[in-house]
Amino acid sequence: MMDWLNNQIKAPDESFYQQALTKQQQLTKPPGSLGMMEDIATRLSAMQQTITPTIERIWVSVFAADHGVAEENVSAFPQIVSTEMVKNFVNDGAAVNVLSHYVNAQFEVIDVGLLKPVTLKKLITDRAGNGTANFTKQAAMTEQQLKQALSTGKVAAERAIAHKTQLFIGGEMGIANTTSASAIACAITGLSVEQLTGAGTGLGSKEIQHKAQVIYNALLLHQQQLKSPLKVLQSLGGFEIAALVGAYVFAAQQGVTLLIDGFISTVAALLAIKINPQVQLWCFFAHQSQEKGHRLILEYLNAKPLLDLNMRLGEGSGAVIALPLLQMACKLHNEMATFEQAKITTN
Amino acid sequence: MMDWLNNQIKAPDESFYQQALTKQQQLTKPPGSLGMMEDIATRLSAMQQTITPTIERIWVSVFAADHGVAEENVSAFPQIVSTEMVKNFVNDGAAVNVLSHYVNAQFEVIDVGLLKPVTLKKLITDRAGNGTANFTKQAAMTEQQLKQALSTGKVAAERAIAHKTQLFIGGEMGIANTTSASAIACAITGLSVEQLTGAGTGLGSKEIQHKAQVIYNALLLHQQQLKSPLKVLQSLGGFEIAALVGAYVFAAQQGVTLLIDGFISTVAALLAIKINPQVQLWCFFAHQSQEKGHRLILEYLNAKPLLDLNMRLGEGSGAVIALPLLQMACKLHNEMATFEQAKITTN
Repeated sequence: MMDWLNNQIKAPDESFYQQALTKQQQLTKPPGSLGMMEDIATRLSAMQQTITPTIERIWVSVFAADHGVAEENVSAFPQIVSTEMVKNFVNDGAAVNVLSHYVNAQFEVIDVGLLKPVTLKKLITDRAGNGTANFTKQAAMTEQQLKQALSTGKVAAERAIAHKTQLFIGGEMGIANTTSASAIACAITGLSVEQLTGAGTGLGSKEIQHKAQVIYNALLLHQQQLKSPLKVLQSLGGFEIAALVGAYVFAAQQGVTLLIDGFISTVAALLAIKINPQVQLWCFFAHQSQEKGHRLILEYLNAKPLLDLNMRLGEGSGAVIALPLLQMACKLHNEMATFEQAKITTN
Repeated sequence: MMDWLNNQIKAPDESFYQQALTKQQQLTKPPGSLGMMEDIATRLSAMQQTITPTIERIWVSVFAADHGVAEENVSAFPQIVSTEMVKNFVNDGAAVNVLSHYVNAQFEVIDVGLLKPVTLKKLITDRAGNGTANFTKQAAMTEQQLKQALSTGKVAAERAIAHKTQLFIGGEMGIANTTSASAIACAITGLSVEQLTGAGTGLGSKEIQHKAQVIYNALLLHQQQLKSPLKVLQSLGGFEIAALVGAYVFAAQQGVTLLIDGFISTVAALLAIKINPQVQLWCFFAHQSQEKGHRLILEYLNAKPLLDLNMRLGEGSGAVIALPLLQMACKLHNEMATFEQAKITTN
């Protein structure tokens, strides 16, 4: 039913990677002196199978959904804010909107399952349900809902690919979704609830303790179910997280570069990688979020984020902020003079 | 003779800073969730005395000069590379050229004292001498040369200001200039030669030991002279470092924002701040260089760099790479909807 998730993902092209490494050694700079900018350019060369990689066509899909677990008082904001922020996205007022304009990215927002449907111009509606169930009492979603939400992400990636997108950014909105993401990350990594539970949009220390207890209880309740990444996602996930997983897996299958945002998005990438490990070959990790646990999950994935600016907003915002680094890495790779062209002594 | 260095530097405007803080609290995001992007926007508001800061007019001056201490075999590259790279700058082939185009910055390169004068179209010539003297044997420069090199930087900042520059980036090129910068940093901070001596453009560990010994000897030779930042600069500096100091001090006096590049530039900023402490109020520090010692100098200044990408190129390149962060911080500050505009529940 969700067999497409296991379809093969090709590795980026090793021969272009080697050509790009050679090129980097010829550019007019001490070898290695552009640091991670060199890694970005060489990986993009391999992904795009070109000696002149570019990042010009960028796609941002923000997936929004509600979480039944919000009724356990795990967020600093009331649940209605999910829907209010969706309105803000379609009205072009949120951080990710402003940033998408700056980098000239194509932007869309998808209702994967807000509590109540809303009709808004420019809102894409592809719902798996009226929010997830409260996973402290039952599985967050049915298998059918999981399938639907994964498909919503796949379909978004298909839209992106139809526009010849070179780089896909997934964003998310859903009050209480750090609770879901922390629970998933515990189930997948085996790290403790205490290590992976943080302040989300702004909880105090007592509230974080309560949130951790909620997660702990849910992990106990579902422990017999948490045997596979898809079962973890069905038991503890959110529709928007499932959509991100679907989008990441499908985009990687199609050879599209992924730029992963913060905590929630990294947990979705973690699931995607557990489902199909080759996904990671197509990922850049944009930033180290301030959300507790993000660092440990990045370390678990052996991933080095590009930025560390103490952000914790989500929406895909951190990924868009990192995007110019990828563009500049390409420009440096393509446009710098070589030692030979510039007649520079290298002995 | 260099009295202008002590002219008053105004603090950025506190009332605009407070207004910007208030504005940040009203934008549609959890308070503080944009992390350092919020700090950037509020500081720029205060610097520009506006509620809508922008970074549109950017100026990059790269100062090039040679170092007598290069004859002590302290660099991985031969001295001729300083001149060759200047040609690369005027021919638009270096990293900083490519990056300056990306951010649409005005770019210039100034010969402050290469070993031999060169005539090149687009090269600004404002020389303090034929390279500095070898500071293991005598002071790197005369007082007259120091005055001249500081003035070269001031004049560059004047050109930038005549173009209504909102943000000034200084870059440098000079084979052996990490040796000079490390020596200066030791003299100013009291940190050890071992802590502040690194690989520069790519020395091995034995060569770094030799470089450290060269610096240690120079500090011993000049110890009676190292009583003021200007004396340190005259004894151990380079003409390009002095030019950066002059540019930083003058730009800050004129209320122009400074974006400081890597190791060499940070040492120049350290000197400028020691000469006139209010300079720091106008500084952003672009990145944590891979060069050993940079972290300690940033900590000494209590400065948190924006990026950490393992770079160590100089030329101003790291500063230009950080520039989009400042632009995006402004856009977010100016263009995001407020909670009231978007009708978002905040209880």
